[in-house]
Amino acid sequence: MGKGRLEAFSDGVIAILITIMVLEVHVPQGGDLASLRPLLPTFLAYVMSFVYIGIYWNNHHHMFHVVERVGGSVLWANLHLLFWLSLVPFVTNWMGDHHADALPTAIYGGVLLMAAMAYTLLQNTILAHEGPDSMLARAVGHDWKGKLSLALYVAAIPLAFVNAWFADALYATVALIWLVPDRRIESRVNR
Amino acid sequence: MGKGRLEAFSDGVIAILITIMVLEVHVPQGGDLASLRPLLPTFLAYVMSFVYIGIYWNNHHHMFHVVERVGGSVLWANLHLLFWLSLVPFVTNWMGDHHADALPTAIYGGVLLMAAMAYTLLQNTILAHEGPDSMLARAVGHDWKGKLSLALYVAAIPLAFVNAWFADALYATVALIWLVPDRRIESRVNR
Amino acid sequence: MGKGRLEAFSDGVIAILITIMVLEVHVPQGGDLASLRPLLPTFLAYVMSFVYIGIYWNNHHHMFHVVERVGGSVLWANLHLLFWLSLVPFVTNWMGDHHADALPTAIYGGVLLMAAMAYTLLQNTILAHEGPDSMLARAVGHDWKGKLSLALYVAAIPLAFVNAWFADALYATVALIWLVPDRRIESRVNR
Amino acid sequence: MGKGRLEAFSDGVIAILITIMVLEVHVPQGGDLASLRPLLPTFLAYVMSFVYIGIYWNNHHHMFHVVERVGGSVLWANLHLLFWLSLVPFVTNWMGDHHADALPTAIYGGVLLMAAMAYTLLQNTILAHEGPDSMLARAVGHDWKGKLSLALYVAAIPLAFVNAWFADALYATVALIWLVPDRRIESRVNR
Repeated sequence: MGKGRLEAFSDGVIAILITIMVLEVHVPQGGDLASLRPLLPTFLAYVMSFVYIGIYWNNHHHMFHVVERVGGSVLWANLHLLFWLSLVPFVTNWMGDHHADALPTAIYGGVLLMAAMAYTLLQNTILAHEGPDSMLARAVGHDWKGKLSLALYVAAIPLAFVNAWFADALYATVALIWLVPDRRIESRVNR
Repeated sequence: MGKGRLEAFSDGVIAILITIMVLEVHVPQGGDLASLRPLLPTFLAYVMSFVYIGIYWNNHHHMFHVVERVGGSVLWANLHLLFWLSLVPFVTNWMGDHHADALPTAIYGGVLLMAAMAYTLLQNTILAHEGPDSMLARAVGHDWKGKLSLALYVAAIPLAFVNAWFADALYATVALIWLVPDRRIESRVNR
Repeated sequence: MGKGRLEAFSDGVIAILITIMVLEVHVPQGGDLASLRPLLPTFLAYVMSFVYIGIYWNNHHHMFHVVERVGGSVLWANLHLLFWLSLVPFVTNWMGDHHADALPTAIYGGVLLMAAMAYTLLQNTILAHEGPDSMLARAVGHDWKGKLSLALYVAAIPLAFVNAWFADALYATVALIWLVPDRRIESRVNR
Repeated sequence: MGKGRLEAFSDGVIAILITIMVLEVHVPQGGDLASLRPLLPTFLAYVMSFVYIGIYWNNHHHMFHVVERVGGSVLWANLHLLFWLSLVPFVTNWMGDHHADALPTAIYGGVLLMAAMAYTLLQNTILAHEGPDSMLARAVGHDWKGKLSLALYVAAIPLAFVNAWFADALYATVALIWLVPDRRIESRVNR
C-alpha cells in the first residue's frame, strides 16, 4: 500500500483538529477589554494545544517522509494516534474553562500521555517493518526526546493535584523540547 | 477519470466526520469527576463511531487501491455512501444522549445498515466495471464479512426495542469483526 | 500554474461544506419519535443541499479533468464559486427552520442562482483560455443544462412568494436534471 | 523534504478556516426580512475575511509554486502563519457583533497585521534558503505590496479608536490592493 492516502487522511484530521479548537474560544458578549479578559486562560490553552498538534504534524511528516509503503497495522496504529489527538480540543477547552482545577489539568496531561504512547506505538509498528538498519531506525536512534516526554507527562499528572501550574509548566517544557529543531531525520536525508 | 480526486474528496469528508463528532462531547460545566461522569455514554458512543468511520476509511482505502479508473456512476455511488456516513455524528450524539431509549439505538443501527448497503452498492458498481477476474473481485470473494454485518444490523434493530444493550453488543461485534485484520486485498497485492 | 492545489483546496472546502450542514440538524431533546418529527423539514433541506453540493463537486471534477493549467483569474473565479457555495449551509438551515415562509425559500434559490452564475463564470474564464476547439468547449457545447437551471432558479424565486412548495419543486427539478448522468465530458475523454 | 504535504496541510487548514466562519453567521429566529437585517454587519465581516483568506491562499499557492524543497524552519514558519490565520474567524465574529466598537475593530486589524508579518517571515525564511537569484526572489522584488499592507494595518489600528469605519475602510483597501491581479510570479514562470 502506498502511503499517500494515509498522509492525506492524517493531514485532513490534524488540520481539522488544529482549526476547530478556535471555535471554542467563544466570542465575548461585550466589545470592550473587560469582556476579553476572561478568555485569556482559554486562549493560552489554545496556543499550547496548537503548538502540540503542530509538533505532532511535523513529526508525523518527518517520520512518513522516510517510509515507503505501509500495511494494515500501520493504518490502525495511525488511527489510534488520531483518536487520542481528536480528544485534544475537548480537554483543551475543559482545562481552559477550569484552569485552576486539578482534574481537567491532569486529564489534559493524560490525553497528551496517551497520544505520545500512541505515537511511540506507531513508530515501533513502522520500525518492525522497516528493520533496524532502515533510515528511520537510525534517525530515531534511542528516541530520548520521546522517552523524556513520556516521563514528564507521568510526573505532571500527579503534580496537577498539588498545583495545576506545576503541571502546566511541565506541559510547556515538553512542547519546548520538541520546538527546538530536531535535525535527526532531515540530516539523514541529506537534502 | 482518475481516482485521485475521488480519494481526496472522500478522505476530506471522512476526516471531517471522524473529527466533528468530538465537538458534540460538550465540555462539562464543572471541573470535578462528578461533572465528567454524565459524559460517559456519549464518549463510548463516540469511540464506537470513531472505530466504525475508521473501518470505512480503511476499507475504502483498500478497495480503491486496486481500482485504476472510475466513471460517473462510481462518483455517485461514493457520494451515496458519504451521505449515510454523514449522518453518523447525528445518530451518535442522539444515542449518546438517550442510550437507554430504544429508538435512538435502533436508528443508529439503521444508519449503519444503510451505510453498509451503500458500501456494498459502491463495491458492486466498481466490480461491474472491473469484471469478475479483476484483482478486486478475487480479493472481495464471497464477501462473507459484508453479508454477516448486514445480517447483524438487521437483527440488532428490532432487538433495540427489547433492550438497547443487546443492539449495542451487536454493533460492537460487527466493529470487532472488521477490526480483525483483513488480509484479502493486501495479500493479493503481494507487497 | 498546475491545477493540483486548486483541486485540492476546492475538494477541501466542498468536503467541509457538505459535512458541516449536518451539524445544524440538532440532536433532539427527547428519545422518541415525536421529538424526531420536527426535524423532518431540516433533514429534507439537508438532503437537497447535499445533492446540490455533490453535483457541484461532480461537475467541478469533470471540468478540471480536461484542463491542464490554470492562471490567476481562474483561481479567483473558483474562489468566487466557493463563496456562494459557502452560503448554502446557512440558507439550508434557515429554509429548514422556516420552510413555510417565502423569504428563506426565495433566498435559498437566490444563493443557488448566484452559485450557478459563478459556475458559468468559472467555466467561461477557463474556456477563454482553452479556446473554442478545446476538449472542454466541445464537451460543454451549448450548455443547455446550465441555461435551463438558471431559468428555473429565476422562475422559482418569485414563485416562492406564491407558495414555498412551488419553489421547492423547481429546486428539486434542477437537482434531478443534473443527477441524470451527463456523459458529455466522459464520452469525449474516451476512456 | 518535499513540499507536497506542507501544501496539503495548509490547504486543509485554510479551507477549514474559510468555511467555518460561516457557521457563526447564526440562522435568524424569524423568517422575514426584519430578522435578516441584524446579520448584515456579520455578513459583511464574513465577506471581507473570506476575501482575505482567499488572498492568503492565493499568495501561498503562488509562493510555493516556485519552491522545490522545504526544511524544518519553513514548516514552523508556515505553522506560525496558520496560527494567526486561525484567529481570523474569532475576530471576524467579534467585529461583526460589535462593529461600532473600537476594540474589536482594532484587534481585527491586529490579527491581520500579525498574519501579514508571519507571511513576510515565511517568505524571508524561504528566500534565505532559495538565495537572491532564485525565481522567488526576483518575483517578490521589493515587495511593495507587502510593505504597504503592513503600513496600512499599523495606521488602521489607532484609527479604529477614532472611528471604526476609518479602520474598516483601510482593511478593505488592503484587500483591494491584493485582489488586483499580481502577475509577478506568474509572469516569471512564463507559462
